[in-house]
Amino acid sequence: MTVVTVSAHSLYGLDNLPYGVYSVDGSAPRVATRLGDTVVDLAGLLGDEVFARPSLNAFMGQGYEKWVRVRAEIRDRLAQAVPDEVLFPLADVTLHLPVEVADYVDFYASEHHASNLGRLFRPENPDPLTPNWKHLPIGYHGRAGTIVVSGTGIVRPSGQRRAPSDDAPSFGPSTRLDIEAELGFIVGTGSALGEPIPVEEAERHLFGVVLFNDWSARDIQAWEYVPLGPNLGKSFASTIAPWVVPLLALQEAKVPAPQQHPQPLPYLAAEEPWGLDVDLEVAWNGEVVTRPPYREMYWSPAQMLAHLTVNGASTRTGDLFASGTISGPGKDTRGAFIELTWGGTEPVHVAGETRTFLEDGDEVVLTASAPGAGGSRIGFGEARGRILPATRG
Amino acid sequence: MTVVTVSAHSLYGLDNLPYGVYSVDGSAPRVATRLGDTVVDLAGLLGDEVFARPSLNAFMGQGYEKWVRVRAEIRDRLAQAVPDEVLFPLADVTLHLPVEVADYVDFYASEHHASNLGRLFRPENPDPLTPNWKHLPIGYHGRAGTIVVSGTGIVRPSGQRRAPSDDAPSFGPSTRLDIEAELGFIVGTGSALGEPIPVEEAERHLFGVVLFNDWSARDIQAWEYVPLGPNLGKSFASTIAPWVVPLLALQEAKVPAPQQHPQPLPYLAAEEPWGLDVDLEVAWNGEVVTRPPYREMYWSPAQMLAHLTVNGASTRTGDLFASGTISGPGKDTRGAFIELTWGGTEPVHVAGETRTFLEDGDEVVLTASAPGAGGSRIGFGEARGRILPATRG
Repeated sequence: MTVVTVSAHSLYGLDNLPYGVYSVDGSAPRVATRLGDTVVDLAGLLGDEVFARPSLNAFMGQGYEKWVRVRAEIRDRLAQAVPDEVLFPLADVTLHLPVEVADYVDFYASEHHASNLGRLFRPENPDPLTPNWKHLPIGYHGRAGTIVVSGTGIVRPSGQRRAPSDDAPSFGPSTRLDIEAELGFIVGTGSALGEPIPVEEAERHLFGVVLFNDWSARDIQAWEYVPLGPNLGKSFASTIAPWVVPLLALQEAKVPAPQQHPQPLPYLAAEEPWGLDVDLEVAWNGEVVTRPPYREMYWSPAQMLAHLTVNGASTRTGDLFASGTISGPGKDTRGAFIELTWGGTEPVHVAGETRTFLEDGDEVVLTASAPGAGGSRIGFGEARGRILPATRG
Repeated sequence: MTVVTVSAHSLYGLDNLPYGVYSVDGSAPRVATRLGDTVVDLAGLLGDEVFARPSLNAFMGQGYEKWVRVRAEIRDRLAQAVPDEVLFPLADVTLHLPVEVADYVDFYASEHHASNLGRLFRPENPDPLTPNWKHLPIGYHGRAGTIVVSGTGIVRPSGQRRAPSDDAPSFGPSTRLDIEAELGFIVGTGSALGEPIPVEEAERHLFGVVLFNDWSARDIQAWEYVPLGPNLGKSFASTIAPWVVPLLALQEAKVPAPQQHPQPLPYLAAEEPWGLDVDLEVAWNGEVVTRPPYREMYWSPAQMLAHLTVNGASTRTGDLFASGTISGPGKDTRGAFIELTWGGTEPVHVAGETRTFLEDGDEVVLTASAPGAGGSRIGFGEARGRILPATRG
């Protein structure tokens, strides 16, 4: 029996307790939590077979009361000595995709990001925001099957692109490969067809939060996206962190959401609209190049879920919706390199080299933290990916 | 033991043998085929437990050679007397969603439809087609979780809309509820991340074809879709037929695809580009109002799958991609009511009443047939849905 000790400065103390899926030496993947740098097998700790599964989905589907109860049980157990066989050093385990993703939707909830992209993609328009932007959280469905776990290599996508000066499109590896630093929100319990989730009830459906990198090939995207939206410019891969931070761990991180003008329609209005005070960092080849602040996001997670379902669309355990790029007002808070380098016209210096977009071999790591109880900080693991050369083109 | 007899004029003869999932009196759903009006339990007929499942996915994932072998076995067995306990009258069974849908993508592959919609949605543009349209099959991801089986009631969606004359958006039930008559293509065996499917190999990955109605709320869609594409205007429901017609049953239906100008890029070029000679019919409250011809589609299913994967995106068993609205050149071949009534400005007479868009209680039934061997016809079942009143707004 061992008592797991953890520094008061750890991002993974008893106030965090994120959920993930691990294996050791090729064992069957199972659900775990993390305390400091120790991975704790939850089926072993709690004697509950719902955790002896290769994803969080079965547990998430058991609902809000169960999430509350399990979190309290984990804290109780880990405050005491626990059997050694449920503990593994973080360095010894393989971490897997924590969730079987059902439907994936990507939003566009940062006013700064949407304004910057509007200026870059539609310079002829006097208003960088489209007329609908402040009335509804704009989002589109993306490819659930290409969401991969941190550490998966990202093969440079090939595709069609046509620069404004080209007569015809050409085919080849993307030359404007980018990131989007986002948070993803995971639906724990779904909703039936024809039954919208009111904005006040969103929190009971939302299980947790995960770091999300929506890799984007800007040249492919720019050529394809009118009129039906992004497809191949995004669908080749999105990276998520292996740890899902429960929304229950983020009560201290709740902050009032930014004021919205004009007042949104009643189905989007909440009595106490909340955002999250999560600070992200983006490291490019080991150097932090930007610090996107989630608290600046115009549309809140609860508004996004209420909007997604207001037409009667059902949701399922494992649905994931992401915030869209998190960009703050300052240049050093922009969450995509196309914004940071202003469409590639303002190169940045990164780890001794000059960059506009991603080059083969480059590595990007997203990390984040948020306030926890009693002055602690809550960590989100990392979403890491290295660019591999294109395989055709 | 019984020999199932079927009229030579049946759309469900031995040349068709579609796959579906049925139950009787609340039994566990299992995979079946259909001969005439008899449903045949395949686990019972063939003694193969892969069919004792609630979806086709496990069978589809076994691959092309297995699909060929099973089809031959079914034909052999059904040419002789079979045990009565594997046979059920069609009228006695409940038919279920045949496939667990993984990722769903909707294309936009009809030149006539895209031109009509361009004129209606973007009348200020001189060219109704966007510059990319003839270079790539435009598509977007849709909501897999709201694909429902024929017969499911369609609750009228509510949402935001803003007419050009309105100052601000309002919320309420859609007043421009429409259909899109399409075919869906089901991926039987997927492909790995970073490994595109060449256009010539698409056929070995495509298991079958299914009637598909992409219900569309045009008022919601028009307000939301710039710049990231359709979302809530489509995500409330899509209806598929319960029977998946194997691509192996459609060899006689293959026709040369329309000539493409300009020549597509090499990854989209096939030595023998094929389309499918499938005739659809759309009945509105029992009256056939349009007959969309699939053979007119500009982009082929093989091109769509090659495009979907050319950036390295992986595919999975159960992925479904739909063609987009099938519209021919004539008014009586348009596959969406927004085209048939020209944005609601040219009402049609349907079953003794006047209509522009769908009213509560209206029912739409898609059916289709294609040439089979020896002069037979292959049927696709039906995709049926009735509009139920909005539940809020």
